[in-house]
Amino acid sequence: MKKGTILSGMRPTGALHLGNYFGALENWVKLQDDYDCYFFVADWHALTTGYEDTSEIKNNINDLVIDWISAGLDPEKCVIFLQSSIKEHAELHLLFSMTTPLSWLLRCPTYKDQLNQLKDKNITTYGFLGYPCLQAADILIYKAGFVPVGEDQLPHLELTREIARRFNYLFDEVFPEPQAILTKAKVLPGTDGRKMSKSYGNTIALSDSPDEVRKKVSTMITDPARIKKDDPGHPEVCTVFSFHKVFNEAEVPEVEEQCRGGKIGCVQCKKNLANKMVEHLGPIYERRQKILENPGMVKEIIANGNEKARKIAQQTMEDVRKAMRIDFI
Amino acid sequence: MKKGTILSGMRPTGALHLGNYFGALENWVKLQDDYDCYFFVADWHALTTGYEDTSEIKNNINDLVIDWISAGLDPEKCVIFLQSSIKEHAELHLLFSMTTPLSWLLRCPTYKDQLNQLKDKNITTYGFLGYPCLQAADILIYKAGFVPVGEDQLPHLELTREIARRFNYLFDEVFPEPQAILTKAKVLPGTDGRKMSKSYGNTIALSDSPDEVRKKVSTMITDPARIKKDDPGHPEVCTVFSFHKVFNEAEVPEVEEQCRGGKIGCVQCKKNLANKMVEHLGPIYERRQKILENPGMVKEIIANGNEKARKIAQQTMEDVRKAMRIDFI
Repeated sequence: MKKGTILSGMRPTGALHLGNYFGALENWVKLQDDYDCYFFVADWHALTTGYEDTSEIKNNINDLVIDWISAGLDPEKCVIFLQSSIKEHAELHLLFSMTTPLSWLLRCPTYKDQLNQLKDKNITTYGFLGYPCLQAADILIYKAGFVPVGEDQLPHLELTREIARRFNYLFDEVFPEPQAILTKAKVLPGTDGRKMSKSYGNTIALSDSPDEVRKKVSTMITDPARIKKDDPGHPEVCTVFSFHKVFNEAEVPEVEEQCRGGKIGCVQCKKNLANKMVEHLGPIYERRQKILENPGMVKEIIANGNEKARKIAQQTMEDVRKAMRIDFI
Repeated sequence: MKKGTILSGMRPTGALHLGNYFGALENWVKLQDDYDCYFFVADWHALTTGYEDTSEIKNNINDLVIDWISAGLDPEKCVIFLQSSIKEHAELHLLFSMTTPLSWLLRCPTYKDQLNQLKDKNITTYGFLGYPCLQAADILIYKAGFVPVGEDQLPHLELTREIARRFNYLFDEVFPEPQAILTKAKVLPGTDGRKMSKSYGNTIALSDSPDEVRKKVSTMITDPARIKKDDPGHPEVCTVFSFHKVFNEAEVPEVEEQCRGGKIGCVQCKKNLANKMVEHLGPIYERRQKILENPGMVKEIIANGNEKARKIAQQTMEDVRKAMRIDFI
């Protein structure tokens, strides 16, 4: 017996890195055993900030699903689908747009933040403003009771609940008010110690080979105060140590003690880390190799998932049209 | 050989009156012979201002199509369909929302006008703001080259052209830039001399029986300066005279001369008008009676029209997805 329905998605904007993996995907893999999970590739959402260059979307969709399966999502356990294949999301988005006060969207805390952050992009569009409305449709069309989110996404989920409440109040009780499953994100900096982000060029991709992982670990920034091997280190400022905390939890006290005591050089410490990382990421890399041998697999997975998702979405839309009394045909 | 494709629609908000008929519908009936015409019941648009009470939408859809057929639209000549049945409109609306600058919508001249006019309704919603974006999708999904509009609708059509241009520029030449066919609206006041409008209770419905028409004509406001039959009249301020200009064009000089000369009483003048109106509206009323004998007819007409419209809409969406390079599946 599953504990409920979960909905979550990611934008197809390029290869996932370890920050994405530990921020969300690792958690998805756990959730698929206990919940009815719907995981979708948010290609329409990718347009809100990326409509000016769509040349990579199709490749990115493909790569994202490969990342997911490599990481352990199992299409037999969860539904993996493509947002733009389920037209009902667009229909529900349109209907929600009719009942969603403009002020709710304008006041959404992430709206102005993003406008500021993405100043170089021309995103002052109608669709960018309405993105939480599309998100509400994505979630509610599966009557999802739970959404795994990070803290920063809580205002959006609150908006989804408000949109659901307003619909239920105006028409009929159709939607649940989905609750957050807060992801305890493991903090993983980029190889240079800043936030891991493609725009900084400091990522380790989920698709990196063991050799690439070793190479990137070898270039990581460590404690700048440590010149010689026996200088005492300061793990709290060391990127490598942050990675040990994620990939080598059991040995963290030992690593810290060796570093502070100047008993181990950074080169050796990096090698130890790289071994642990390759051990941890090995199964992911191996699954990837298998998928790559079967190039038609991603389309097949999506086609199957679409079919399952569409069935639920269509049922919900029947309820919606009936509640709104627009079920003429 | 048809001259091109035309798209137009009406919101299902209640029985059409003669103002609506002469403002648009009469023209549609003429256009169906020369153009490939797509006429749609804009039930989603009706939600932009009427989402709070949808109890009458289904009846209104039914009545609107009966009005159309009564007026002479012929489902063999034109495509009559229901907006909400063609989900592709919602999909294209969503895609246009991604490329439409918010400022285009906020600056649309009708936007603030309507917000002012409809102060009693809670319409400061996301969907109300985006209504020209949905309208653009309605028009462009059929690659319509022409749209019959009144002068007041020209800014919206200009916005549709801008949305088409922007799409073609960003992605690929998919859409034509539709041109206006300006409807020379015959001016028909309400029975009290003000603008004919349901909210004033001064309408003559297209569905009124000959008896109802005669009764309403008999209550029309005439020249208030005319007390006695042989007082000289002032046709320019007389509601009945405005109606003569529409329904009794050939005799207008004679009517005017008799009125100014005090040669005819208002009662007789009204009777003459009523006869002409009943003559003109008779065929419409008779067609209505036939349709009413066949209650399943409207759904059948819409189902057939939907099928034709959907085929075109789906073709266009294939072009759109290909141009945007989001045709993964």
